[in-house]
Amino acid sequence: MQRRHSATWNLYYKRRRVNLLSYIFPSGRKFDFTAIGRLCIDLNANEINRPMEETMTFTKYVGGSPANIAIGMSRLGHKTAFIGKIADDQMGRFIQGYLEKEDIDTSNVVTDKTGAVTGLAFTEIKSPSECSILMYRDNVADLKLGPLEVNEELIANSKALLVSGTALAASPSREAVLLSLDYARKHGTTVILDIDYRPYTWNSAEETAVYYNLAAEKSDIIIGTREEFDSMERFENNHDHSDSFTASKWFNYSAKLVIIKHGKEGSIAYTAEGLEQRAKSYPAKVIKTFGAGDSYAAGFIHGLMSGLTIEKSMEFGSAAACIVISSHSCSDAMPTVAQVEDYIERCNRGEIIAG
Amino acid sequence: MQRRHSATWNLYYKRRRVNLLSYIFPSGRKFDFTAIGRLCIDLNANEINRPMEETMTFTKYVGGSPANIAIGMSRLGHKTAFIGKIADDQMGRFIQGYLEKEDIDTSNVVTDKTGAVTGLAFTEIKSPSECSILMYRDNVADLKLGPLEVNEELIANSKALLVSGTALAASPSREAVLLSLDYARKHGTTVILDIDYRPYTWNSAEETAVYYNLAAEKSDIIIGTREEFDSMERFENNHDHSDSFTASKWFNYSAKLVIIKHGKEGSIAYTAEGLEQRAKSYPAKVIKTFGAGDSYAAGFIHGLMSGLTIEKSMEFGSAAACIVISSHSCSDAMPTVAQVEDYIERCNRGEIIAG
Amino acid sequence: MQRRHSATWNLYYKRRRVNLLSYIFPSGRKFDFTAIGRLCIDLNANEINRPMEETMTFTKYVGGSPANIAIGMSRLGHKTAFIGKIADDQMGRFIQGYLEKEDIDTSNVVTDKTGAVTGLAFTEIKSPSECSILMYRDNVADLKLGPLEVNEELIANSKALLVSGTALAASPSREAVLLSLDYARKHGTTVILDIDYRPYTWNSAEETAVYYNLAAEKSDIIIGTREEFDSMERFENNHDHSDSFTASKWFNYSAKLVIIKHGKEGSIAYTAEGLEQRAKSYPAKVIKTFGAGDSYAAGFIHGLMSGLTIEKSMEFGSAAACIVISSHSCSDAMPTVAQVEDYIERCNRGEIIAG
Amino acid sequence: MQRRHSATWNLYYKRRRVNLLSYIFPSGRKFDFTAIGRLCIDLNANEINRPMEETMTFTKYVGGSPANIAIGMSRLGHKTAFIGKIADDQMGRFIQGYLEKEDIDTSNVVTDKTGAVTGLAFTEIKSPSECSILMYRDNVADLKLGPLEVNEELIANSKALLVSGTALAASPSREAVLLSLDYARKHGTTVILDIDYRPYTWNSAEETAVYYNLAAEKSDIIIGTREEFDSMERFENNHDHSDSFTASKWFNYSAKLVIIKHGKEGSIAYTAEGLEQRAKSYPAKVIKTFGAGDSYAAGFIHGLMSGLTIEKSMEFGSAAACIVISSHSCSDAMPTVAQVEDYIERCNRGEIIAG
Repeated sequence: MQRRHSATWNLYYKRRRVNLLSYIFPSGRKFDFTAIGRLCIDLNANEINRPMEETMTFTKYVGGSPANIAIGMSRLGHKTAFIGKIADDQMGRFIQGYLEKEDIDTSNVVTDKTGAVTGLAFTEIKSPSECSILMYRDNVADLKLGPLEVNEELIANSKALLVSGTALAASPSREAVLLSLDYARKHGTTVILDIDYRPYTWNSAEETAVYYNLAAEKSDIIIGTREEFDSMERFENNHDHSDSFTASKWFNYSAKLVIIKHGKEGSIAYTAEGLEQRAKSYPAKVIKTFGAGDSYAAGFIHGLMSGLTIEKSMEFGSAAACIVISSHSCSDAMPTVAQVEDYIERCNRGEIIAG
Repeated sequence: MQRRHSATWNLYYKRRRVNLLSYIFPSGRKFDFTAIGRLCIDLNANEINRPMEETMTFTKYVGGSPANIAIGMSRLGHKTAFIGKIADDQMGRFIQGYLEKEDIDTSNVVTDKTGAVTGLAFTEIKSPSECSILMYRDNVADLKLGPLEVNEELIANSKALLVSGTALAASPSREAVLLSLDYARKHGTTVILDIDYRPYTWNSAEETAVYYNLAAEKSDIIIGTREEFDSMERFENNHDHSDSFTASKWFNYSAKLVIIKHGKEGSIAYTAEGLEQRAKSYPAKVIKTFGAGDSYAAGFIHGLMSGLTIEKSMEFGSAAACIVISSHSCSDAMPTVAQVEDYIERCNRGEIIAG
Repeated sequence: MQRRHSATWNLYYKRRRVNLLSYIFPSGRKFDFTAIGRLCIDLNANEINRPMEETMTFTKYVGGSPANIAIGMSRLGHKTAFIGKIADDQMGRFIQGYLEKEDIDTSNVVTDKTGAVTGLAFTEIKSPSECSILMYRDNVADLKLGPLEVNEELIANSKALLVSGTALAASPSREAVLLSLDYARKHGTTVILDIDYRPYTWNSAEETAVYYNLAAEKSDIIIGTREEFDSMERFENNHDHSDSFTASKWFNYSAKLVIIKHGKEGSIAYTAEGLEQRAKSYPAKVIKTFGAGDSYAAGFIHGLMSGLTIEKSMEFGSAAACIVISSHSCSDAMPTVAQVEDYIERCNRGEIIAG
Repeated sequence: MQRRHSATWNLYYKRRRVNLLSYIFPSGRKFDFTAIGRLCIDLNANEINRPMEETMTFTKYVGGSPANIAIGMSRLGHKTAFIGKIADDQMGRFIQGYLEKEDIDTSNVVTDKTGAVTGLAFTEIKSPSECSILMYRDNVADLKLGPLEVNEELIANSKALLVSGTALAASPSREAVLLSLDYARKHGTTVILDIDYRPYTWNSAEETAVYYNLAAEKSDIIIGTREEFDSMERFENNHDHSDSFTASKWFNYSAKLVIIKHGKEGSIAYTAEGLEQRAKSYPAKVIKTFGAGDSYAAGFIHGLMSGLTIEKSMEFGSAAACIVISSHSCSDAMPTVAQVEDYIERCNRGEIIAG
């Protein structure tokens, strides 16, 4: 993990209070970060601020929440690997090539041989605040990852395993992820669950709740929106949508940190020690909202792994998100540490104003 | 729970050492025992000791491992309920009627409305030791039980919840069972997992292992054959098929008692306190092997619930099993306490000899 | 085809007017009659005149409309073969053995290797007029017969091919039957379509109409109830359910003879030459209604093949039907020529009265 | 149908021998041409002459063989309608809008409400002769067109119905097409079958052969490649791949004209009267091969409908094909009459040379 920090941040890193030992990731592992789940293609509208019917050309990017986070983590200087499945076609090969170019280990990216296709996401940007996605998720390769295709040794050699909830949506990917959680717990690898709930592919809201709960029970860090946590509490009595009810529940299992996102009102981090932390956010000239969560996750995890406080990690994630939503793509726009620090400093100097 | 015991057993009950408080079930519950899972029809060959091709008539019985155990428990004097789904046809109505006749609460036995059928098991008895089953398990009602159809209150009102592993074989029954486990843990209901592994319906051996492990993690008592535990250890390193490895694994989760059956060599009970218990078995004039496991389970659970030692509970289960394998049916042959005690006494007097 | 007839019938056979050359079947073929389609098991209630819930034992018979007709034709003295698929289990082997015992050629009865099951029909006889069937048709072997498994040579060597419409209900059996029709037309084999419509297995009423029409277009003789023809006319304007509209339609294709059954009001035969023929029916002491259509079909086809007039063929079919509905089984009760002639004579002598 | 022709072609139209009355389409119909089947999206590589992995942007066009032919026919001046099903999304609405802009009647283009998607075809152009397509055909709206969604009146009001064989690949589109053929025959609408065989979606080669044969039996004009006809003759003995065997077969059913394409060696038209016609082809500066068959079909049908001889119709189709393969898109490049005539004249003047 080689990174150079600006003077301001170096100062900060020195002064930080290493307050929460429990968040420390295991040391002496070959990989800092391994993600499991979706590898897809984004087809982003080139002509934007109009309905997709009027968009005539699209640009191809690697997509999928865990793919974006992995690319983000690699750019932020972490030794990163991926566990996933790609289609045996041009789209699949493009994804593999892109990950390798980004210095992500793909030894556990397997190629489907059943004729599955690569998931697609056509993005529609009617306006910065009216964005939608047209998904192709039938017969996709990423959901065909099976338990036997998950490399236990890779998980044992990683400090953290990021699980994207969408990978729980169908078998055999569901079982592959559930098994990966067991491998992670067995080897002391820190599990980060990014809920990433998307209704397609799931059969019912009840099924969704059951599997998200099973995964969350085995996770150390859980990140999701209030609505995502609500969908997991279908069989509970949290009718007030209380964040502290939610956080407490998971602290009774394995969780040490629960991040609940409240959209524009910001995110709140809850810790097993009882802390409740908010952090300031930064302004951005928004082009679209896609990718905000993924860049936030990468930035936040980077912060934790770099020894920042939770507050500073949240701010770092927030700034990383701003960079992505100010640009056309998600994966391609994932920033480096220098870019995030630069963005924060420009915000601090008042050079960036929301719009 | 009103039972009269023979003099010998009354003596035993008084002398027993109530040694293992941890096995005690919660008290003050409306139901002693609730089972969740399969409700089927057995069609037993009337002309036996020949291949099924030559059997011309069949007799209809209620079947399915958890159904048999529930019937057994009710006959042994326990207040019993069932959580399951039946087809909207004559077979389904027969099952419901039979359970009610056996004094089993069926308020949580729901009727399928999608056109599912009742699972069937045609039994073939070529000889007492050559028995096989021809199963009809496509589109069966029992596997269509959904999470919303599991009554949390019933589980909260039960001392024990018996889960039959076959109910994990397909969605939405799989999710219904996983949710029932959460309800049981939430309310302190003792969970008994009867592995009851049957390869049909399952998609792969890996899928089987993943879900059996998830269920076993939340179970207090786990009962299975050595081969069944082996199938759960597909992702572990228990190449010697060590019972103590198996038992230890589950004691790290919720289990307090693990019963591993070794066929003719008898069963071994392992406790979280480190005890390892074998018990003597009884002779029987075997007609067929079907139902042995179910009557053993009913007898053993009855023993634990009645405060017998593990050893005596195993013996009681063993005698109950002998009675069932000496008769033509499974469910219909489930014995009462008096019948089991009588059987044991006759064995002790040397009146029953294996054959 | 060796049969001995009673004196009365011999006289009749001599005097008959061989009026309709077009019905003559091709000569010089190895087989008189080949059927394609369903091979199942009937499980007939032993205790009858009650709901099935109260029936405790069932007797096993070979079942399925084309199987019954083939057994009937063989008993009536015709050299018969079957094209079908059986499960690789005890039920499948029982079916094959039974057909062979009945002297039916099974060289084109293939065994499924995909784990399909044998279709089942549990019969419920609440009263002679209140009969119903509980069907098991999921994943059945008979619907897995594929086009490559249809022996062209066998069809070329048969005078007649009987197609049971139920075999059109799902792929690949649907395509196997459609191909068998082409083989039959190519080789001048007379095609008899027994509509035999049963709603299960079909996806929609429209799908049903499309495929029944495609099969009927290539059939020489079409037999069905008024309701069955109605279901085929979903895309036409026969709002009055006119029989002559129906018959005319098919005479524009390949049909030479159309039999429309009107339940208790009897059947009407329409010929391409414009004849319209009714025939008298016989009384019977009815036990159940199952199998009436199949024995009628066998008797009627036997009549045509033996050179009887249409009227006499219909009477022969009618008497054959009476015999079957007066007994417990369908396949097992299919009569011989002597039995039918005897039945007719006893009716004529007033010895049999409906009841 | 209003078209202006160049002087040369006007002369030709006058001199032509109206030799084959049987090809004349019915008159007095509201629509000249109605197509049934696939409505998709082509995503054409903008950066070409490279593998798709290296293509970064794609341009969106309406695609699908019958859509292309319908667009071609409308541009050639024929009153055109479409029978099909589109997804309820931006892609579906784009298709509907494009057809309407091209003056094609979409009153029988229905919108799916089950969550189906729009079929996609990503094109890869490695070189003018190395082209391939990456298809998305899972859960596509076009194959969900059902029999009840086919408007009989529209077919009755059309001179010709073009059926694209791909629409036979799955239910319920398969049944919708089979029913449309019956409507066409009932109303004397000329049926043109464009075989358009594409292996995806079909379950087996046998299934393919069965349904293509059923459709071809009811078609007046059949157009396909030699390989496509071979795939239909799986159950016949045309081991020499004889064109005259193929053509004769269909003349025994309804066909009056059979076009068999032999790639670079040109196409041969066979008529029921026994004529065998080849036609000269034109040079082109090829960009890609996609769309050649569709523009050929549109040009050829236009020729027949305009009263050209078969030979001249084939030449017209050939020139129309050259125009499409010289440009980037398929649907968008479909030419007008003036463009085709201009192309032919430029070829005749030696201004266009293959390359």
